[in-house]
Amino acid sequence: MKNITVVKIGGNVIDDADALKSFVKDFAKLEGPKILIHGGGKEATKMSAKLEIPTTMIEGRRVTDAATLNVVTMVYAGLINKRIIALLQAEGCNAIGLTGADANVVTATRRNPVPIDYGYVGDIDPAKIDDSFIANLLGSGIVPVFCAIMHDGKGNLLNCNADSVASSIAIAASRIAPADLCFCFEKAGVLADIDDPTSLIRSITADIYAGLKKSGVVNKGMIPKIDNAFKAISSGVRSVTIKYSGDLLVDTGTVIS
Amino acid sequence: MKNITVVKIGGNVIDDADALKSFVKDFAKLEGPKILIHGGGKEATKMSAKLEIPTTMIEGRRVTDAATLNVVTMVYAGLINKRIIALLQAEGCNAIGLTGADANVVTATRRNPVPIDYGYVGDIDPAKIDDSFIANLLGSGIVPVFCAIMHDGKGNLLNCNADSVASSIAIAASRIAPADLCFCFEKAGVLADIDDPTSLIRSITADIYAGLKKSGVVNKGMIPKIDNAFKAISSGVRSVTIKYSGDLLVDTGTVIS
Repeated sequence: MKNITVVKIGGNVIDDADALKSFVKDFAKLEGPKILIHGGGKEATKMSAKLEIPTTMIEGRRVTDAATLNVVTMVYAGLINKRIIALLQAEGCNAIGLTGADANVVTATRRNPVPIDYGYVGDIDPAKIDDSFIANLLGSGIVPVFCAIMHDGKGNLLNCNADSVASSIAIAASRIAPADLCFCFEKAGVLADIDDPTSLIRSITADIYAGLKKSGVVNKGMIPKIDNAFKAISSGVRSVTIKYSGDLLVDTGTVIS
Repeated sequence: MKNITVVKIGGNVIDDADALKSFVKDFAKLEGPKILIHGGGKEATKMSAKLEIPTTMIEGRRVTDAATLNVVTMVYAGLINKRIIALLQAEGCNAIGLTGADANVVTATRRNPVPIDYGYVGDIDPAKIDDSFIANLLGSGIVPVFCAIMHDGKGNLLNCNADSVASSIAIAASRIAPADLCFCFEKAGVLADIDDPTSLIRSITADIYAGLKKSGVVNKGMIPKIDNAFKAISSGVRSVTIKYSGDLLVDTGTVIS
């Protein structure tokens, strides 16, 4: 099989109907086997508010009690995932929407409730992802589109971090063919000055990253994303790029190597 | 391929957590290739009420405006479908949840808005169902689980009647192998006296059906279900049974022939 492109889009793209349509058009044009992973945090927060379910975030991660699990399952696996699938089909891209439970493709382990009980939140071991099912879909010209809802194999769905899902799936994809991972979001990439889009840092190595963290240029929200990028690189993913969602087809952004 | 069993479960089973778990255990035990189709009307109605979206029903069918389409997509394709998938996986049944948009497996046509505009409601032509994708899943030992959300191929999701979806998918399945369709619901089958569970009518032919309609024994809600059953039979489905959801593994119910 040819190289596999694994793309992750975040909540800001999904929340903006025009940006999402534009992204979907670009994604449909990407050549070769490809996989999409999406988040969708803001819509879940809005839906929780409408349903009067309190949202609790600890260190940027959603505490997922049973009621919140229902909300994220509805919003991520239902509303957002199927909206994206319908839009992709309209662009001639034959996509299939998946949670980890579907075809048992990704099992997750509920996070240890000590020291912080995040509830129905899971972590993924990339080694346990069923890459043969993914390979079969890609081989049939079908594009898997994952939301970040996985399962424990015991009947429970688990809410996972979408960046970690993307990294884990890229690692699994790299067992099929060389895999390139692209994190798409609302910024041009990693910026030396967050308010200056022209201050793009084009390349980050482990050494540069250590310096950027030390100097505080890389801030809290970006650290797990870059950590996931390095984890992917060290686990067999060929390349990782962090870029603006509108630049999917353009060779730009921050390359992690 | 062996015979394919196509099972439809209705909203009353889904609304009752214990009944659903029990049904899932039975369904997992069914031997051979199988397909599940589920409705889920009541949870969508409850969710619409919580979100203060008015529910309008005309002749037992939900009028689906854009806000209602979002609700049914969330509830059917997200909450209910993925809950069922996780439960099936826990029973060792490797299931995959699908809308018609996924892998472009079922396209639907938006219903003519004249004389009644039902909004985003679609009807399915069984001839247009991609039975090769379904055959591939079944051949890999994977069980497709459909909710009643389909798409028009132009980017729009469409809400369909779950009984019609079941009938259409059974017709498509019968192009792969002999297919048996089973409608599971809260009654023992078609009853001569709706208040007497022992008054089961064991067999209904077209002649018997005409008589039952004339005498009023078959009432409004049951007519579309039996019409779908006869449509399936006349389009190649080998058998259709209407039975209690707790009797999936028992040879009982009303056989339509």
